[in-house]
Amino acid sequence: MKIIRATVLTIGEEILYGHILDTNANYISNALSDVGIKVVMHLSVGDIYDDILQALEVAGSKSDIVLITGGIGPTNDDITKKCLSDYFNSEIKLNQKVLDELSDYFKKRGFPFTERNQKQAYLPENAEIIPNAMGTAPGMWFKKDNKIFMSMPGVPHEMKHLLEEEVIPRLTGTFKTSIIYHKLIMTAGLGESWLAEKIEEWEDSLADWLSLAYLPSYGQVKLRLTARGQDKQFLIKGVESYIRSLYKYIGQYIYGEDGETIQEAIGKKLISSQQTLAIAESCTGGYISHLITSVPGSSAYYKGGVIAYNNSIKESTIKVKHETLQKYGAVSEETVKEMADGIRLSFNTDYAVATSGIAGPGGGTAEKPVGTVWIAISGPDGCTTKKLTILKDRSSNIKYSSVQALVLLWQRISQKN
Amino acid sequence: MKIIRATVLTIGEEILYGHILDTNANYISNALSDVGIKVVMHLSVGDIYDDILQALEVAGSKSDIVLITGGIGPTNDDITKKCLSDYFNSEIKLNQKVLDELSDYFKKRGFPFTERNQKQAYLPENAEIIPNAMGTAPGMWFKKDNKIFMSMPGVPHEMKHLLEEEVIPRLTGTFKTSIIYHKLIMTAGLGESWLAEKIEEWEDSLADWLSLAYLPSYGQVKLRLTARGQDKQFLIKGVESYIRSLYKYIGQYIYGEDGETIQEAIGKKLISSQQTLAIAESCTGGYISHLITSVPGSSAYYKGGVIAYNNSIKESTIKVKHETLQKYGAVSEETVKEMADGIRLSFNTDYAVATSGIAGPGGGTAEKPVGTVWIAISGPDGCTTKKLTILKDRSSNIKYSSVQALVLLWQRISQKN
Repeated sequence: MKIIRATVLTIGEEILYGHILDTNANYISNALSDVGIKVVMHLSVGDIYDDILQALEVAGSKSDIVLITGGIGPTNDDITKKCLSDYFNSEIKLNQKVLDELSDYFKKRGFPFTERNQKQAYLPENAEIIPNAMGTAPGMWFKKDNKIFMSMPGVPHEMKHLLEEEVIPRLTGTFKTSIIYHKLIMTAGLGESWLAEKIEEWEDSLADWLSLAYLPSYGQVKLRLTARGQDKQFLIKGVESYIRSLYKYIGQYIYGEDGETIQEAIGKKLISSQQTLAIAESCTGGYISHLITSVPGSSAYYKGGVIAYNNSIKESTIKVKHETLQKYGAVSEETVKEMADGIRLSFNTDYAVATSGIAGPGGGTAEKPVGTVWIAISGPDGCTTKKLTILKDRSSNIKYSSVQALVLLWQRISQKN
Repeated sequence: MKIIRATVLTIGEEILYGHILDTNANYISNALSDVGIKVVMHLSVGDIYDDILQALEVAGSKSDIVLITGGIGPTNDDITKKCLSDYFNSEIKLNQKVLDELSDYFKKRGFPFTERNQKQAYLPENAEIIPNAMGTAPGMWFKKDNKIFMSMPGVPHEMKHLLEEEVIPRLTGTFKTSIIYHKLIMTAGLGESWLAEKIEEWEDSLADWLSLAYLPSYGQVKLRLTARGQDKQFLIKGVESYIRSLYKYIGQYIYGEDGETIQEAIGKKLISSQQTLAIAESCTGGYISHLITSVPGSSAYYKGGVIAYNNSIKESTIKVKHETLQKYGAVSEETVKEMADGIRLSFNTDYAVATSGIAGPGGGTAEKPVGTVWIAISGPDGCTTKKLTILKDRSSNIKYSSVQALVLLWQRISQKN
């Protein structure tokens, strides 16, 4: 089977200055690899006519597909559009349909539709225009000598949406690619090396058309199985059979498959048991509630939370006893227990999570250094606690302890610890 | 003065698969920008002879300096070395000095000196060899037609050491470079195109040694001024003077400089005025509190928050009236006002922020579609509100409205709206 080659071209000075990392090229490469398209080159150039044109030529000489991001916002002086238009021997003309859509976009938001914005409706005549549901710069799809060139906006969430909804389906429809089938198994509660030890025998049994990768992050480990071949049904069935046997080794640590998050797994459990949740946070500052409420439909089980940063709020809003704070301090098993029990009672929920700790960089002591975090899970069957000692920076301490709290909650509600 | 142009070329499949981010290109670009060398292109290719050779040709045609990383480790099959050798019409020969050093390196560590390692001493004859103090693959410095090509290992800490200790000093010694001085101005409250209109006159007045870039994200726009010249003091003073005049055009939208975040700007203001803050969130689900508490030392002004996801919590914990919820609904100006006033009163703070909206994808109606968000800021001088209509996905709706709430808070506490 012919290998389909792609080049990713990013346009913008800020990448060349080193001010931002080229995460778009990385994201696009991953997405192309997933559908069996081989990325042979990344190219980054600035908003300069000659550089962009040469980049288009080099990219076109090496690849069947050229995916371009950046250089088409309202303040980019249209150099990218001019280059694409010249490269494809086209002309830039007003696209009435795009103009109407843009006008509508601005009207809906109650924003003035300025001349600068109107210019975005002037587009190369021979491009197929692909609407950008997330912004104002539309995508442009070109075909030349059986090669596809696609120009996308550089704003990451706009690019991702266009890539996933439009570009990948069009590419897999246009080119016949070899089949790659990925399966992700989401685990929590066991570190990478302990997990590896537990599944060593299983890993040794994997067929040669299968490869395994460990992808750890913040106390969770994703296992990625990659199967390669020609017969998709064969690959899917084979992977399924291996996964059934994987559950025998580490079933109690698996919370989901295919990129499911721990907060989604928690949501599913709570919906099926018709139970509810409240969260009292101190050091995690709202991040656990943010993770829980990032799941669509979370209002069905999440009643609310309190960020009790100041001790006075711990006392007044979630009924931690003044004496407990006095005697044991805010960062203690006793306080975090009262926080969890207190919010569970006052918010009238089945479960409650509480955290209290020292995120840093200030506030540490010899006895309770930065990175000391207490977590409590209160439920119908009582209150359990855990102490973490993390030793990362503030941002990582917050994120790591939030995910750990969710892992503990998941273990409790699924009775897996 | 002649602008010195550079291309960064990274060699390795793992970047093209999207498995790792190309942090080397980013690091090198930053380092080159700092000494006034203009990076005009990034290129990434795999370990393939034709691709590397073409990349060397493209890079050499565009730039005075080509910095190469990767492709020279003990498992890379010497393709990069062969390409460099052919490109420079050289031959690969045993370098006795490097062999001795390598032998010494392995002896010191008690490792066997394998054939694979010995191969690393076979090097292009016309390269100047630059020892790699951090590993076994040495750097290679080539000169051709007044252009410099430098090959470095791909392991980040080896590359960084070689770059800083050897490459940058050699480059600034070889080329007379101009000085580049960057300044970031952080703005909020005005979109990219409206900002551009407001400062059009100012932008037109910029000297030719200055360039301006707009870097937008989630309702904020960074303005990056880049000055180029010979005299650093002149550049700094010139930029300062332009920035003073910029404040006359858009002073009320500028919250900071040089990468400061809006939550840091808010923290500074509250610390200097010794005022406090509470946050009542519904649709933003804790994300605003997370942003506020991501700032070290935020416990000095942030007392706490409530995530009132369920209406019962809005009533019980922050005293929204039952009739208000009945009459106007949770997503309304009346409710969000009572949320802000209610938490300000019960948490006894100077300011309070409240949000209520429909993050989606479910829950929208014709009258209140997904993306409808009400924000209220309550303070000593009363309560102000704003309605947003966002029309993005759930995650973006949450993040965008959280940042907008912080922008409104910042405008209120700095009396800039």
